[in-house]
Amino acid sequence: MPSIEVWIEYASTYSYLTVARIGRLAELAGVTLDWQPFLLAPVREQQDLGWPFPEQSAKAAYMWRDLERRANSLRLPYRRPSAYPVNSLPAARVAYAGQQEGWCRRFTEEAFRLHWTEDCLIGTDQNLREAIRAIGLDADDVLRRANSPENKIALKAQTPRAIERGIFGSPSFVVGRELFWGDDRLEGAIDWALRHADGAP
Amino acid sequence: MPSIEVWIEYASTYSYLTVARIGRLAELAGVTLDWQPFLLAPVREQQDLGWPFPEQSAKAAYMWRDLERRANSLRLPYRRPSAYPVNSLPAARVAYAGQQEGWCRRFTEEAFRLHWTEDCLIGTDQNLREAIRAIGLDADDVLRRANSPENKIALKAQTPRAIERGIFGSPSFVVGRELFWGDDRLEGAIDWALRHADGAP
Repeated sequence: MPSIEVWIEYASTYSYLTVARIGRLAELAGVTLDWQPFLLAPVREQQDLGWPFPEQSAKAAYMWRDLERRANSLRLPYRRPSAYPVNSLPAARVAYAGQQEGWCRRFTEEAFRLHWTEDCLIGTDQNLREAIRAIGLDADDVLRRANSPENKIALKAQTPRAIERGIFGSPSFVVGRELFWGDDRLEGAIDWALRHADGAP
Repeated sequence: MPSIEVWIEYASTYSYLTVARIGRLAELAGVTLDWQPFLLAPVREQQDLGWPFPEQSAKAAYMWRDLERRANSLRLPYRRPSAYPVNSLPAARVAYAGQQEGWCRRFTEEAFRLHWTEDCLIGTDQNLREAIRAIGLDADDVLRRANSPENKIALKAQTPRAIERGIFGSPSFVVGRELFWGDDRLEGAIDWALRHADGAP
């Protein structure tokens, strides 16, 4: 079955559009998703790139308007959260534990939904606990595993793995040796996965 | 008739995809194009943004691969030029004169085509002269008007006009008060122009 690595930074705005629809799109297309939570800031630091949307910049103002328009045209619920950027580290740790244990997709969808429709911010204890409970797991248990030294180290090891793949933003999709960046490229990545499922270039 | 301002920096890579198809798309849709050549570097300088694709960066490497894939999927001829970035000032001056005289689209299409399919680089005298001649004008005449003090000053005045509109990249499309950035948003801009032709929000 064709497969796509889905690299997600949990503070990324456009990644909401992807998280809200990739699960269903991949199911319809018959493509397997390999969720790869990571932290974008250390990746961009190593590349001498700043945060993609400097506060007060024209680029940030555009991003908010464009995001809203895109959410509307994709018919996704959208409510601008009260804070940006957020500290995504706690969510990334939980998500990485979920990647190891097979519930990363469900947690990620719920954490993003809470952030982007209920202003329950990613990175807060409330967001983590509500998202974990919503997928039927015990919040204390999961948070213990998420904050274990092994899990913290494993999440950090995602940084060189992301850099190896040429990643510099979120969402990113890796299909074989091809990289696709941005929610705009989601359909392109799925299409590529379907056409090159046998590993053909 | 619905109308779109098309803001183009002549050294921009993704702008090739737009220049190669926007004329025909707009004709089919019944939308008027208002060409607005400008210089992106001073706009980004005022916003403390660097050039979008730092040399040797993962982002630049991605851009080249993505551009080629996009050109292929849009069935546009594509040959990677031997230099990047180029000095776009001479081309922008000619294009701005063309904007005043009504031949901006034809010159722009030809200058980009020479750059992106024949490695005849935008910004060189050869590119300018061949593009001007191809649209049936006298190169010496046009270059004289392009390099007149009035034209130089008018092109410079595009910088504050771009900033006023919230522009920070190329291609950018302005439809009423809505800004769309990137070749990916071309269809969205045309769609917006058609749905809001009466000025409705």
